[in-house]
Amino acid sequence: MISMLLADSELELVPREIVGYPAVRLNARKRNKSPAKSILDASLHHSAMRALPMGDRRGRPDIVHVFLLVALESVLNRVGQLRVYIHTRNNEMITIDPTTRIPKNYPRFVGLMESLFEKGSVPEREPLIVMQRDRDIGACIGEIPHEKVILLSPKGRRVRLSDYVKECDNALFILGGFPKGEFISDVLSEADDTISIYEESLSVWTVASEILVNYENHVLEASAPS
Amino acid sequence: MISMLLADSELELVPREIVGYPAVRLNARKRNKSPAKSILDASLHHSAMRALPMGDRRGRPDIVHVFLLVALESVLNRVGQLRVYIHTRNNEMITIDPTTRIPKNYPRFVGLMESLFEKGSVPEREPLIVMQRDRDIGACIGEIPHEKVILLSPKGRRVRLSDYVKECDNALFILGGFPKGEFISDVLSEADDTISIYEESLSVWTVASEILVNYENHVLEASAPS
Repeated sequence: MISMLLADSELELVPREIVGYPAVRLNARKRNKSPAKSILDASLHHSAMRALPMGDRRGRPDIVHVFLLVALESVLNRVGQLRVYIHTRNNEMITIDPTTRIPKNYPRFVGLMESLFEKGSVPEREPLIVMQRDRDIGACIGEIPHEKVILLSPKGRRVRLSDYVKECDNALFILGGFPKGEFISDVLSEADDTISIYEESLSVWTVASEILVNYENHVLEASAPS
Repeated sequence: MISMLLADSELELVPREIVGYPAVRLNARKRNKSPAKSILDASLHHSAMRALPMGDRRGRPDIVHVFLLVALESVLNRVGQLRVYIHTRNNEMITIDPTTRIPKNYPRFVGLMESLFEKGSVPEREPLIVMQRDRDIGACIGEIPHEKVILLSPKGRRVRLSDYVKECDNALFILGGFPKGEFISDVLSEADDTISIYEESLSVWTVASEILVNYENHVLEASAPS
């Protein structure tokens, strides 16, 4: 079993500073949403986001979406050996039940996240996705059972994952949920090890699938009859 | 080096039979597109699609999108060891240059596919994605250099990929680009081997990442100093 935590994910509602911008209002109206209850999306709110601090990296629900599709549909998750969590730039912690079927359609996923921000959990009857507020990265790590914390970073020590995962039972892997730049949370001081798997930076779902497949191979080998 | 061909992908323009449906016209108008030049999308055109043969599986550009994000952003592609092709239900063949940066945003990806269907290649100046018409699955396979053809199917012989990929240099892997049901093309007669990697059916990007990571491990091991 391993856990994955997507840290400093660029998932948030449209910030108050830009709810009044014409592009933001127009897009919200098209979707019959109030601007303040809409998920910030760089592809829609690009011009308004220039007014935001770090506006060139924010508003990326698409990264969270593809990460969740890759993680939750993985063989490792199917065999019950994975737990997945999202930490956002505003210190929300999102816990996702392993049986959750994430909408494959992007606009539907965005709609689901808007419900989550509004209601705190979805779906209403039997919540599979739950959001807790005021959870900085240390608090998130504290709530996730683990034996060690492994941070993925292009600056980490280069390892070969197929070997490395053999020592990763019950590890918590932390990956960055943002398109560029550095972690804004102090993840480095929380990590027992900081590793890199390639010479250049990779999409987070690429890093995730490298971990998922290599750890699955390890689990299968360990459980195979000798 | 390996190749991947997504076969019978559910990627097509809105078929003539349903261009006049109110939901189709409304959605096209919202996007300033003519209905006939819009990509069929099950999440938008659901009700109209009931009028189409096999309407319960068509209109899934989202599957092609996530597959391409996983394949083209993989380490295997970064090191130049992957070629990726899409075959559609209407026998178009789409060849994607390995350096292509697929839009991560889904609406933008759909827009790119609409340009591709209209112009035959995108981007205009230096085409990275090229579509050829009248290419059935046999013709696609004929145009892709390969030593053997390996079909992924839940009905195939169960293999352990970490071992199996050792014999896959220059193989062409065929995966299904549809959400349910069977291949509509006669892929079985084209395959040198038909394999399965899990007891239940998996998302195509899960199958792709299993192949990508295991083959990458094989390439790295083969090239490592002993």
